[in-house]
Amino acid sequence: QTEVSEYENYFSRTLLDRKSEKRTDSKWLGTKQSHPASVYILFSNLSPLVKLGRGEDSSQQPEVRLCRLCHKDVQEYMKQTEDVVLIFLGVLPLNKDVLHNLNGRVLDEYEDGQIAWFALSIDSTLAEQFKQKHEDSYFLHPPMPALLQLPENEAGVVAQARSVLALHNRYQFCPTCGSSTKIEEGGYKKTCLKEDCPSLQGVHNTSYPRVDPVAIMQVLHPDGNRCLLGRQKRFPPGMYTCLAGFIEPGETIEDAVRREVEEETGVKVGHVQYVSCQPWPMPSSLMIGCIAVAVSTEIKVDMNEIEDARWFTREQ
Amino acid sequence: QTEVSEYENYFSRTLLDRKSEKRTDSKWLGTKQSHPASVYILFSNLSPLVKLGRGEDSSQQPEVRLCRLCHKDVQEYMKQTEDVVLIFLGVLPLNKDVLHNLNGRVLDEYEDGQIAWFALSIDSTLAEQFKQKHEDSYFLHPPMPALLQLPENEAGVVAQARSVLALHNRYQFCPTCGSSTKIEEGGYKKTCLKEDCPSLQGVHNTSYPRVDPVAIMQVLHPDGNRCLLGRQKRFPPGMYTCLAGFIEPGETIEDAVRREVEEETGVKVGHVQYVSCQPWPMPSSLMIGCIAVAVSTEIKVDMNEIEDARWFTREQ
Ligand SMILES: Nc1ncnc2c1ncn2[C@@H]1O[C@H](COP(=O)(O)O)[C@@H](O)[C@H]1O
Ligand SMILES: Nc1ncnc2c1ncn2[C@@H]1O[C@H](COP(=O)(O)O)[C@@H](O)[C@H]1O
Repeated sequence: QTEVSEYENYFSRTLLDRKSEKRTDSKWLGTKQSHPASVYILFSNLSPLVKLGRGEDSSQQPEVRLCRLCHKDVQEYMKQTEDVVLIFLGVLPLNKDVLHNLNGRVLDEYEDGQIAWFALSIDSTLAEQFKQKHEDSYFLHPPMPALLQLPENEAGVVAQARSVLALHNRYQFCPTCGSSTKIEEGGYKKTCLKEDCPSLQGVHNTSYPRVDPVAIMQVLHPDGNRCLLGRQKRFPPGMYTCLAGFIEPGETIEDAVRREVEEETGVKVGHVQYVSCQPWPMPSSLMIGCIAVAVSTEIKVDMNEIEDARWFTREQ
Repeated sequence: QTEVSEYENYFSRTLLDRKSEKRTDSKWLGTKQSHPASVYILFSNLSPLVKLGRGEDSSQQPEVRLCRLCHKDVQEYMKQTEDVVLIFLGVLPLNKDVLHNLNGRVLDEYEDGQIAWFALSIDSTLAEQFKQKHEDSYFLHPPMPALLQLPENEAGVVAQARSVLALHNRYQFCPTCGSSTKIEEGGYKKTCLKEDCPSLQGVHNTSYPRVDPVAIMQVLHPDGNRCLLGRQKRFPPGMYTCLAGFIEPGETIEDAVRREVEEETGVKVGHVQYVSCQPWPMPSSLMIGCIAVAVSTEIKVDMNEIEDARWFTREQ
């Protein structure tokens, strides 16, 4: 039995239905973009614009919330073409909760009862301009641990937006030929602009956002009463966490768990059991959580990877 | 209960210990590269060089096997710098099985009792030259379904090699700035050559091989006695398979299963249970297998994605 951390599944709870079939429907996307009820969330350098607000229940403490902007708030920024990226995130079906949140906005124009959400990324100059006009809002930076202050259903929206924006942030050029690229399919595809580039023949992963799978594991001692935790140099004093590492090409989740645990601590692992997963938008990982049973107990820490690793009892 | 396909876990059974800590040890790598007992497998355009051989047990039928070359077979190709890529795959500890396979090769020089394996990728001109000298060997092409003829433990080696080579095949240029790149860490890292490129500040996924997670799911009918299978236009007549799709940024495995099934067939899914996973080197996916329980039964096929989908009984 393991204790569930406060942030388990944090980045997977989302408000939105992705409606991926609409990504290629440019007419629909165009209408939604300029629709007064559509919601925009703004990003600069992969950080979302937030403000301090109250929970839905007004007796709650103020909390960090996404700024939900509308088309007229952002339209001047959308005209800039360089370094401005627009992503279609999905829709929120119109219901009572939503009506409540919309306050004074125009409501008599819903053709299809779906509120579209977009993420808009602007460069730092525009971001400065925006902040001067909207003094109560700010860009959450650095992302961690600040992102963990968002309400859960907004964290999922940010996870999606941030991971897709990461495609455009660090993937500006075609990796196959080095040419410039253009954004397509509501932000989910990046296509090479060179006519005879091999990346345009057939389907290649070069054009799609990355999702980097990571294994994160609680390693149980053979006695069933202790677990293995480690710490990295950059952690605050006293902090120990589960071990984790990127899954390599040509490797299963279970083998990645065995390899990482042995590399980092010298402990050998037998049975591995998947538990659950969550997106981890730093910038675009998928954390796959496993329980692993150790078949050896001696710890030999690889100092290149971590600083310390120990067996902890349930009480500890 | 589901039937296990013949190829479940096919690409995850490997001969090798990856020994990833040696990837940065250029002295060790250099010694192993020219060691007469090291094993080279050759690739051209992501296809491995194979020959028809007999299984370990000589009474078996001839089967497709990797050509295990040694340094002197390949050294002239390694001198070429353009379009030649060398990957360190891992080591095979020296044991009786290995001794048996090595036949007449020099055995008195093992300093550490570890045979290193490398993958070498050459361009099509060199590949032609090679084939003319070695008439009994050929490059397995197209990869599917030909790769499925390899013995299982070699399929895992090819999965690893092919996925890492895919990094170099279609990722020649830095996606952040469009400059040229150089290969490092035994082939597992691709570093931008432009001194002030932002990809060199901190750790970025741009330099590492992709692993694209895919969900593949057997959807069970609410009655527990039928399952949902679909077919794509390009399939041979009569072939139906489990549904599958790429996991999107900011999405869990379980939500990807629900989204893909609903998008492709209109069927709504409730509970999703992870079963197992395997690398799928086309070129670099990780197939994550799940059982999913449908909560609706009406099928509405999205003709853009698949051609047909049906509920099949156990007998069918
Ligand atoms: N990493 C990726 N590599 C290739 N295709 C992708 C990727 N991510 C999303 N896709 C989409 O998945 C489709 C191919 O799916 P499939 O036919 O199942 O191989 C492509 O046409 C793309 O629209
Ligand atoms: N896709 C990836 N993105 C970032 N780092 C990676 C990736 N794949 C492998 N790595 C390695 O993982 C290390 C970072 O791991 P961590 O400290 O757990 O974030 C890097 O220094 C790389 O050596």
